[in-house]
Amino acid sequence: MVSRKLFHELIDPHSVVKILNKFVDLRPSGVEEVSISEAFGRVLAEDVRARYDSPPFDRSEVDGYAVVSESVAGADEDSPATLKVVGKVGVGEEPLVEVGLGEAVEVDTGAVIPRGADAVVMAEYTKELSNGRLLVFKSITSGENIARAGSDIARGEVVLRKGTIIGAAEIASLAAAGISKVRVYRKVRAGIISIGNELRPPGNSLRIGEVFDVNAYSISASLRELGCDVATYGIIPDNEDKIKEVVKKALKENDIVITSGGTSAGIKDLTYRVLNELGRPGVIIHGVKLKPGKPTVVAVINNKVVIGLPGFPLSAMMSFKVVAIPIISRLMGVNPSLLKAFKVRARLARRLTGVKGRNVLVPVALNVRPGSNELLAYPVRFRSGSIHVLTYADGFIEVREDTGIIEAGTFVNVELFRGNWVPPSIVCIGSHDYLMETILYEYVGSNELIKYVPAGSMGGLTAVSSGEADVGGTHILDEETNEYNIPIIKKLGMSGKVRLVRGWIREIGLVIPKGNPKGIKGLEDLLRDDVLFINRNKGSGTRVLIDMKLKEIAKRRGIPFNRIKRVIKGYWNEVRTHTAVAAAVSQGRADVGVAIKWAAKLYGLDFIKIGDEIYDIAINRESLSKDCIKRLVEFLGSNELKKVVKRFEGYRLLKNSGEFIL
Amino acid sequence: MVSRKLFHELIDPHSVVKILNKFVDLRPSGVEEVSISEAFGRVLAEDVRARYDSPPFDRSEVDGYAVVSESVAGADEDSPATLKVVGKVGVGEEPLVEVGLGEAVEVDTGAVIPRGADAVVMAEYTKELSNGRLLVFKSITSGENIARAGSDIARGEVVLRKGTIIGAAEIASLAAAGISKVRVYRKVRAGIISIGNELRPPGNSLRIGEVFDVNAYSISASLRELGCDVATYGIIPDNEDKIKEVVKKALKENDIVITSGGTSAGIKDLTYRVLNELGRPGVIIHGVKLKPGKPTVVAVINNKVVIGLPGFPLSAMMSFKVVAIPIISRLMGVNPSLLKAFKVRARLARRLTGVKGRNVLVPVALNVRPGSNELLAYPVRFRSGSIHVLTYADGFIEVREDTGIIEAGTFVNVELFRGNWVPPSIVCIGSHDYLMETILYEYVGSNELIKYVPAGSMGGLTAVSSGEADVGGTHILDEETNEYNIPIIKKLGMSGKVRLVRGWIREIGLVIPKGNPKGIKGLEDLLRDDVLFINRNKGSGTRVLIDMKLKEIAKRRGIPFNRIKRVIKGYWNEVRTHTAVAAAVSQGRADVGVAIKWAAKLYGLDFIKIGDEIYDIAINRESLSKDCIKRLVEFLGSNELKKVVKRFEGYRLLKNSGEFIL
Repeated sequence: MVSRKLFHELIDPHSVVKILNKFVDLRPSGVEEVSISEAFGRVLAEDVRARYDSPPFDRSEVDGYAVVSESVAGADEDSPATLKVVGKVGVGEEPLVEVGLGEAVEVDTGAVIPRGADAVVMAEYTKELSNGRLLVFKSITSGENIARAGSDIARGEVVLRKGTIIGAAEIASLAAAGISKVRVYRKVRAGIISIGNELRPPGNSLRIGEVFDVNAYSISASLRELGCDVATYGIIPDNEDKIKEVVKKALKENDIVITSGGTSAGIKDLTYRVLNELGRPGVIIHGVKLKPGKPTVVAVINNKVVIGLPGFPLSAMMSFKVVAIPIISRLMGVNPSLLKAFKVRARLARRLTGVKGRNVLVPVALNVRPGSNELLAYPVRFRSGSIHVLTYADGFIEVREDTGIIEAGTFVNVELFRGNWVPPSIVCIGSHDYLMETILYEYVGSNELIKYVPAGSMGGLTAVSSGEADVGGTHILDEETNEYNIPIIKKLGMSGKVRLVRGWIREIGLVIPKGNPKGIKGLEDLLRDDVLFINRNKGSGTRVLIDMKLKEIAKRRGIPFNRIKRVIKGYWNEVRTHTAVAAAVSQGRADVGVAIKWAAKLYGLDFIKIGDEIYDIAINRESLSKDCIKRLVEFLGSNELKKVVKRFEGYRLLKNSGEFIL
Repeated sequence: MVSRKLFHELIDPHSVVKILNKFVDLRPSGVEEVSISEAFGRVLAEDVRARYDSPPFDRSEVDGYAVVSESVAGADEDSPATLKVVGKVGVGEEPLVEVGLGEAVEVDTGAVIPRGADAVVMAEYTKELSNGRLLVFKSITSGENIARAGSDIARGEVVLRKGTIIGAAEIASLAAAGISKVRVYRKVRAGIISIGNELRPPGNSLRIGEVFDVNAYSISASLRELGCDVATYGIIPDNEDKIKEVVKKALKENDIVITSGGTSAGIKDLTYRVLNELGRPGVIIHGVKLKPGKPTVVAVINNKVVIGLPGFPLSAMMSFKVVAIPIISRLMGVNPSLLKAFKVRARLARRLTGVKGRNVLVPVALNVRPGSNELLAYPVRFRSGSIHVLTYADGFIEVREDTGIIEAGTFVNVELFRGNWVPPSIVCIGSHDYLMETILYEYVGSNELIKYVPAGSMGGLTAVSSGEADVGGTHILDEETNEYNIPIIKKLGMSGKVRLVRGWIREIGLVIPKGNPKGIKGLEDLLRDDVLFINRNKGSGTRVLIDMKLKEIAKRRGIPFNRIKRVIKGYWNEVRTHTAVAAAVSQGRADVGVAIKWAAKLYGLDFIKIGDEIYDIAINRESLSKDCIKRLVEFLGSNELKKVVKRFEGYRLLKNSGEFIL
């Protein structure tokens, strides 16, 4: 170990480039000339000056008559000026006439102004007579309706500056200035290597312990989005020699190499050791103050950078955004802030607490509140290995290491995951339901943007009452009153925020393989040694029901509920939807689960009814003013709902379905 | 003419799709399967369900020891639990051991949880002893640090919905769910045709009356940005038969055809007539309530759409955004709002007035004000043929036809021209100056985003006092006091908003070709018949000086100033920078202009000094708190400035250079 390297000292991710600058020259590898049709997304390597004026000549901005302004001085509706029409100039034509006092020349929009004229009268203020005379009903000032040559872009003027990312508007300016080719920086070539014995490419099957390689695909896509050329080197097992060989090859063929995996202490810091042996100066940064993303390694080998990202996909993506993009921006020749995803300012919906010594990246979901029309950012809770959060969340907040608590209501900068975040017409978070999904996607919002997130009844109520969601389905039974949904909303003090529309009944029961090979008869069979159960997630209405029924069994048998939970095989195996339960049973991963009848039917499974449950629709009070929610409420109270319900076996309506019951 | 068509009735651009739906089925032309590495930017043609759980097994989220939570109940720093280490599971390995009460198995982050264990203790809360025993200093709850199989994404769950645009985050989800191929909509093939005798491809030279074809390039780039395949059919002259032939061919080869030009009354509605004759039902929409963009034609021919955009590039771009994108979105299979550029909410900086019967698209420049940290939108004044505005403005506001006045301070939605608008570190709007440009780009903000807009001294003062710009150079002489800059700021009542730093002296004079072929001696020569002048734009300090000197000449000669203006050939030819003046003279487009000595030197021209002028730097008071502005003020007062000034001939400092003089 050499002393100048910063081992085991976590580095502020925002100083990585500054530190690297001492070891390597971060700049584009070269310049090439491309035609403007191929320049989209490229980075200008020089200031571009206009070759021609724009417009290239004094140009009429309207259809009308070019005149000497003095000729129509004082003209108005009552006393028009009479001029002699001496010619016409069409678009693209060279004027063959001159305009004198008392004369007019017809010009089209875009035509050259003939010599002598200093203004153009719009056609609508004139009347051409049959004798070649023209009445003008309006006086004009010198220069009116004429765009002077070079007034928009003057020849020699800087049109675009070095470092500009060329978009459609920039291409328009280049073309208008007569430029057909530009010098741009060579594209950055990036090599991608996935490291790990456990990795398998998607599309294959998995053995126990294996996971799909995600980073090769997501990091490649992110790099291509930036405009880099990407070469992938596949999945390399945890073998030092093989990793060395591939990194060496990738370094030769690329401007930068990005690996993922092999950076955590658990696998003995494989990437760190390999990168430190491959060449001078080796590893410069070994761990950053970032959460998720801490085990990030940055090395410089033979004047090229190698970035070792963590293996977990979300960590890899976050580290890519915060650590890799600023490095790559230098190689691309652009200001790093131009490569950052768009930032929006939003009000934080829930308080956040900073973590000492770490910059924490907190994924957030966005929603616009109809009352205040404000953009709110809802922190998303997630596990470090989560992928789902990447599609569910809209962006992230960075909570810097010196931050204590950020109170709800504070304005925060949200860096978006996608460039085009648009407020959804409906955000629906809650218990998963087929009928609800069908109503939303087929009937209420077939042309709308819908965000539908299954998160259980409790997750739904929390989201709806906070405004993160406009609407959410819930089916939580109150054990005391034996009533659905209303008691829990009251108990949680949510009545002021939430209204409730009566929904429908769903038959719920045990879902078992066709033919019931294990002869399951009821919930008591879960206690059997040879039966593997698949449970639902905490917070779901179904889980509440399952636990209630199991408590009854526990009581009957005189054993503690906690012991029952341990006895049931698979009790801790939680999935989030009815579909997932049915899928697990149909694929043999479990022998039995609890789900609604319709899920059993979809997967061709047998079903043993254990009860009816009521699924109601909670709506945020402010959201009631949204068009889509109005349409939803209307649909829930309509006759059409009755027709739709018939498509779903095990569903039926109540007398007060569609009515506000809270 | 057939009655069902909507001739000469301007259509609300936002109802175009609804009207078209009666004539044509706007939907994707087909579906194809692509691998997820090629799926970036494509549109999903089906709901995608997970093939595997994610995680695919119960997985440790930390480096530590898998245990039965009961084994460590009550453990703390003072009374650790002692367990027996019975094995280890690395990442990717199948566990070969089970964990019983009192036992522990070492696990890496990402490893499979061995049977029996229901929680993982983090390594940092443990100490492994040499005898194979483990001390655990913390109790944990069941399930802690374990991600259950399927808890993130469950097999069978909808991962992504039909109509989703696939980005890096979506690719990550697909890979994690084990999916290697997805069904996406076929790319939309669009044919681009430019119509007009006056058009020439960039890179060529122009004859009088000709302009460069801009739309083929900018519309192609916009289409490619959306993910379309583009075929360009070149420039077609204003000839009905030729246009028909090419449109026919393009219709055969593409899903949609977009032409530009030939839609205005001036050229007799060429596009309209051609499209109406090519097939049934022909032109459906003939003019939209849009400004700019009114002469937009939409036709349906043989079940395909042809859009005729106006010829002026800005109009074409605006019509493309408002009229074409919603149509193309249907062909792509995505919700149109997803294709719109990002919208930001900003406060309108100046009042705007709506136009009756037109949706007006007003380009705006954005700036964040340091005082309030608010985003302000500054409406940009422009001529209809402008291109420059596309690179200068950041986006546009749509003022709907039923809008009267929108007061300054109102919140408005700004649709961005680019996806990645970032607040510039410095916005400098004002009189163009080489030294100022050099200071900004080379010394103050070499790593910063700078927006530098030459707009003349008056334009600069207005922008700086309103906050549109942070800083701007000005050199306006007050005729009464013979003093520079301070009097005008006071007269305009801007002192409360603006501070002024003393800048430098620039020698100003007549710029003439090397050797002075026309024997020009002074400004009086502008009155000569054989001398062609190039003037500066109104509002520039140089223009004020020119007019002042010309007024003196007028007085001496006893002729009215207005008459002098008419006598001088080229007086109305205005350009916006010193460079543009020098360029015009060096290229023979003018015989003489007024510019600073440095511009003459840059272009190898002769120079006849007519005076000295003082160029000062106006700074918005609120902007003084910005880091970059602080650095600018510091630099202006530094010794380094003295060194830099020496690089510019004709520049010199004053005693109080760098001091605040207001």
